[in-house]
Amino acid sequence: MNISVLVNGAKGRMGQEVVKAVKAEKDLSLVKTVDIGDNLAESITETQPQVVIDFSLPKTRMEVIRAIVENKAKGVIGTTGFTPEDMIIIEKWCNEFETAILIAPNFAIGAVLMMQFAKEAAKYLPKAEIIELHHDKKLDAPSGTALKTREKMEREDIPIHSVRLPGLVAHQEVIFGGLGQTLTIRHDTINRESFMPGVVKATKEIINKQGFFYGLEKIL
Amino acid sequence: MNISVLVNGAKGRMGQEVVKAVKAEKDLSLVKTVDIGDNLAESITETQPQVVIDFSLPKTRMEVIRAIVENKAKGVIGTTGFTPEDMIIIEKWCNEFETAILIAPNFAIGAVLMMQFAKEAAKYLPKAEIIELHHDKKLDAPSGTALKTREKMEREDIPIHSVRLPGLVAHQEVIFGGLGQTLTIRHDTINRESFMPGVVKATKEIINKQGFFYGLEKIL
Amino acid sequence: MNISVLVNGAKGRMGQEVVKAVKAEKDLSLVKTVDIGDNLAESITETQPQVVIDFSLPKTRMEVIRAIVENKAKGVIGTTGFTPEDMIIIEKWCNEFETAILIAPNFAIGAVLMMQFAKEAAKYLPKAEIIELHHDKKLDAPSGTALKTREKMEREDIPIHSVRLPGLVAHQEVIFGGLGQTLTIRHDTINRESFMPGVVKATKEIINKQGFFYGLEKIL
Amino acid sequence: MNISVLVNGAKGRMGQEVVKAVKAEKDLSLVKTVDIGDNLAESITETQPQVVIDFSLPKTRMEVIRAIVENKAKGVIGTTGFTPEDMIIIEKWCNEFETAILIAPNFAIGAVLMMQFAKEAAKYLPKAEIIELHHDKKLDAPSGTALKTREKMEREDIPIHSVRLPGLVAHQEVIFGGLGQTLTIRHDTINRESFMPGVVKATKEIINKQGFFYGLEKIL
Repeated sequence: MNISVLVNGAKGRMGQEVVKAVKAEKDLSLVKTVDIGDNLAESITETQPQVVIDFSLPKTRMEVIRAIVENKAKGVIGTTGFTPEDMIIIEKWCNEFETAILIAPNFAIGAVLMMQFAKEAAKYLPKAEIIELHHDKKLDAPSGTALKTREKMEREDIPIHSVRLPGLVAHQEVIFGGLGQTLTIRHDTINRESFMPGVVKATKEIINKQGFFYGLEKIL
Repeated sequence: MNISVLVNGAKGRMGQEVVKAVKAEKDLSLVKTVDIGDNLAESITETQPQVVIDFSLPKTRMEVIRAIVENKAKGVIGTTGFTPEDMIIIEKWCNEFETAILIAPNFAIGAVLMMQFAKEAAKYLPKAEIIELHHDKKLDAPSGTALKTREKMEREDIPIHSVRLPGLVAHQEVIFGGLGQTLTIRHDTINRESFMPGVVKATKEIINKQGFFYGLEKIL
Repeated sequence: MNISVLVNGAKGRMGQEVVKAVKAEKDLSLVKTVDIGDNLAESITETQPQVVIDFSLPKTRMEVIRAIVENKAKGVIGTTGFTPEDMIIIEKWCNEFETAILIAPNFAIGAVLMMQFAKEAAKYLPKAEIIELHHDKKLDAPSGTALKTREKMEREDIPIHSVRLPGLVAHQEVIFGGLGQTLTIRHDTINRESFMPGVVKATKEIINKQGFFYGLEKIL
Repeated sequence: MNISVLVNGAKGRMGQEVVKAVKAEKDLSLVKTVDIGDNLAESITETQPQVVIDFSLPKTRMEVIRAIVENKAKGVIGTTGFTPEDMIIIEKWCNEFETAILIAPNFAIGAVLMMQFAKEAAKYLPKAEIIELHHDKKLDAPSGTALKTREKMEREDIPIHSVRLPGLVAHQEVIFGGLGQTLTIRHDTINRESFMPGVVKATKEIINKQGFFYGLEKIL
């Protein structure tokens, strides 16, 4: 297997890690890096990558997707800000151009498993609370992952506690309480590298898919 | 739904909890309690319970099962000590007498979920270690649940650490390590009550089953 | 050492545990148990205990203390509800009658250590948050121990998160964040027995003291 | 306050962090950086720093100390490998040259607090176990901090469990068990930055000291 990859947003904090990860992976070949100021559509047309990995900015998100699908490349997208309306359009494009787009809010495999397990456990142990802990530079609370976890558990009454302290990176625990017992699922991230195995795995999987996928778990 | 239940081993520590739990559950009717010195087979024949819940002694385990199946009752079994050979025989009996037997090493729903999640997570994050923590009166180490967890993960190279301290009850955590991240699944038990929802649930489910089941997760 | 002890509030949930603990301790002799409806003052006068251990009701708290000091007995008090004004009066009585009273909001030695360590750590790692976790029958939040911990840390800006779930008993963790590191101090209680070593220890220590003490740590 | 500082071992992984930290601290002035191949003694003589911070190699440890004391500079030493015999000699030198040397095995303030609290807690809750968790590239087990913690607790019978997994950095928890309760003290490090506040603090404190100190807590 040898998959040609273009990285968009290559100079961002995540983008730099992605470039490193793609270079380090023998099954992937980095054919081009693109950032602000470069012409993405042209770059894709010229280099014809099989997959575009995109960690760029919310405001140009739909232009990026359009450039990918028109070139019949496949997309692994970490950029945030997609609305439900965006996703309906993207799904249509995927079918029209017969290609595949994956958008994932969290590429850490452990976080994806945490959310899946939380969803499953909530069926048997419906009482739960979420504690998410992040470094004190994170301004929003609750975290997107906490909100997504609660949504997956299909329970609006689950409290979310947000801890913000220096010395933390990104952590979450979901505690389920039942008669005489508790079950806790916890994910700890120490750096951006934690997202790379998920990005690489997604790149290898998307190659054989067609359609629109939301959430890393959909293609694993 | 109203299920008639006979409890065997009713005076043991677990048995007493089971009797309380059956009485408290509106869908279950306790028709008889049996303990050492009583004739179980006769009691079953006389009272014709739909389900026999058994938390008795390893040495009489096969006699108990035989008495259950011959009366075409169904069995929810918490007694330990069954060998692989025993299970082959029990499976044959279940088919011969057209009834159902569930044997479960742990009826705490949280523990069952922990084991299932550990099995699932091990596919994506193969490096893991288990820490099991119990009160200092527990003589064996590692715990049966830790061994069963490792077996389910299909990895013989997973270290198990056994902590024995006063003030603990029964706890286990499975820590998975991946690039830049860890995923932890932890189960905490504070008392025997934690097993009762699993016993009650199993009793309600077994009524519609036929065959032999090993592990609570098999009938949930 | 052989210390004569009277237990007040002996039929309450804590009182029953205290009676058991006093009986089990070779250095202590239980001379009398008193509960609602009994005349405490008379009982003390008649039996002349060296120490009165009191786990009774807030509303009669000052009468109880008065009965103890007038008889020159020493008091180990777990009853709650004392105001700062009460304490000033009690201190005066201790000096007037030349005896000793200890009032402690938490007799679990681990909880006392947790509070002391939190106070100490706050000097070096000023950013902290408290998570307290209790069974879902506990109606008040935050817990008294969480409030007392924050008070000892002399920081009003420390957030307290209250988790309420079945399967929990009484737990608290204080998380300190610093550059690149966190320090966590956690206390877990599984039952009322956890308070008994503190009650027994206090009873043995108070015998050699004179004056008023607030907090178990003051006499350890 | 303005303290002139020379950093020895400035190109090592810790040394680089120290250089950054000294530059960032307004009360400290970096007058010189020294590494392998440079002449440390001469550099000290020429630049006359008030404090030498040393994170270099075990084999030259005593030469480094000698160069510091002869120049009547003070030393903050993170290099490892000092034997009890070394320390006796260093103490003598400190007195002879009327200067001060601090050697610390761990400069993370949280780790120092963890060890102090563990020592204190062990007096009241003697049963304990240590779990230390590190990245899977760490070859030695148990960790030096775990061994030092046990030594401070003055209990040789405390089990140490060593967990080695990718995704971990450096973590330790000490669990104390008592009747019906546990107390847990945990320290988590996510990067080398965690040592810098301790190094800076030590540098500011050593300036007013005379003599030999082993352990950061000795001068805080």
